[in-house]
Amino acid sequence: MRQRLLDATVECLVESGWSGTSTTLVSQRAGVSRGAQLHHFPTKDALVLAAVEHLSAARRQELQAAAAGLPTGPRRTRAVLEMLAVHFTGPVFSAALELWVAARTDAALRLAVGPLEQRIGRETHRSTVELLGFDQSEPGVRELVQATLDLVRGLGLANTITDDTARRGRILDAWAEVLDQKVRG
Amino acid sequence: MRQRLLDATVECLVESGWSGTSTTLVSQRAGVSRGAQLHHFPTKDALVLAAVEHLSAARRQELQAAAAGLPTGPRRTRAVLEMLAVHFTGPVFSAALELWVAARTDAALRLAVGPLEQRIGRETHRSTVELLGFDQSEPGVRELVQATLDLVRGLGLANTITDDTARRGRILDAWAEVLDQKVRG
Repeated sequence: MRQRLLDATVECLVESGWSGTSTTLVSQRAGVSRGAQLHHFPTKDALVLAAVEHLSAARRQELQAAAAGLPTGPRRTRAVLEMLAVHFTGPVFSAALELWVAARTDAALRLAVGPLEQRIGRETHRSTVELLGFDQSEPGVRELVQATLDLVRGLGLANTITDDTARRGRILDAWAEVLDQKVRG
Repeated sequence: MRQRLLDATVECLVESGWSGTSTTLVSQRAGVSRGAQLHHFPTKDALVLAAVEHLSAARRQELQAAAAGLPTGPRRTRAVLEMLAVHFTGPVFSAALELWVAARTDAALRLAVGPLEQRIGRETHRSTVELLGFDQSEPGVRELVQATLDLVRGLGLANTITDDTARRGRILDAWAEVLDQKVRG
């Protein structure tokens, strides 16, 4: 039941955004009584903070599952970028974006979201370096991987209100070329 | 008075976010009576849509003013990146981000924000090409400029909940080097 409430919270964030997500909507969506919900999560804050954790686990799992299907060879770099772009334009990122932006003006939420985003950021960075097969001891490589993750985050934001697929594809083609030339030489 | 209400709307978005911005808060902040506010903007939608226009004009002005102070010579590329980063981490971008994310799940707002964001995107692209002195007829240059703008947007998002200044500086150093090598040869 706890799991169902957390899934429902993420679904509400994806469909109705932060401002449209209420504990009433979440309990309705989860098919859980108000009493049972209050038993698991006495306050909205308690529910949201648990949902932040739940969402970060979902993001980790989504990226790990996608990494398993990557090709090797000359198309590897572009495939890693595609994997990241799919993640950063998907519903799980939309939910995280809602929390992220809400946290900007909500101190309690920021205390929860801030450290988790930093941890996810570090993990995603490390796994991206591994997937690309880059050597971070070479000068500039760390910064190019960081730039790659900030780029796909920016692309994710661009995609929230318009379908940006075609433009994004061309940008990632060009970015893959930059990475391959600069890092793989 | 109209101008004061629109400025107050943007300030409320920066300080309280989309979910914390109400017409009551805006009229209080503007020091304008409820009746006078309703005269200028009969509904919250009318106020917000006018604020979207107002904000996009503010963004254009901020970028134009910053462009006037850019140095020439070998530090030009890095200075253009810094100018963009300052814009995408500033309060005017925070207000736009609130509207952007709210528009994801609000169809009426999306109808207003979508076309304006596309127009701002095209204008910012064109002025960035000019400021960098790049030739977009060369293959790949258009995509690298687009990537630059998506990168600074991602950096703007990263900066909303933590101070990301030092990391951002190193990333922009590395990216300026890439642009200068790839485009200026």
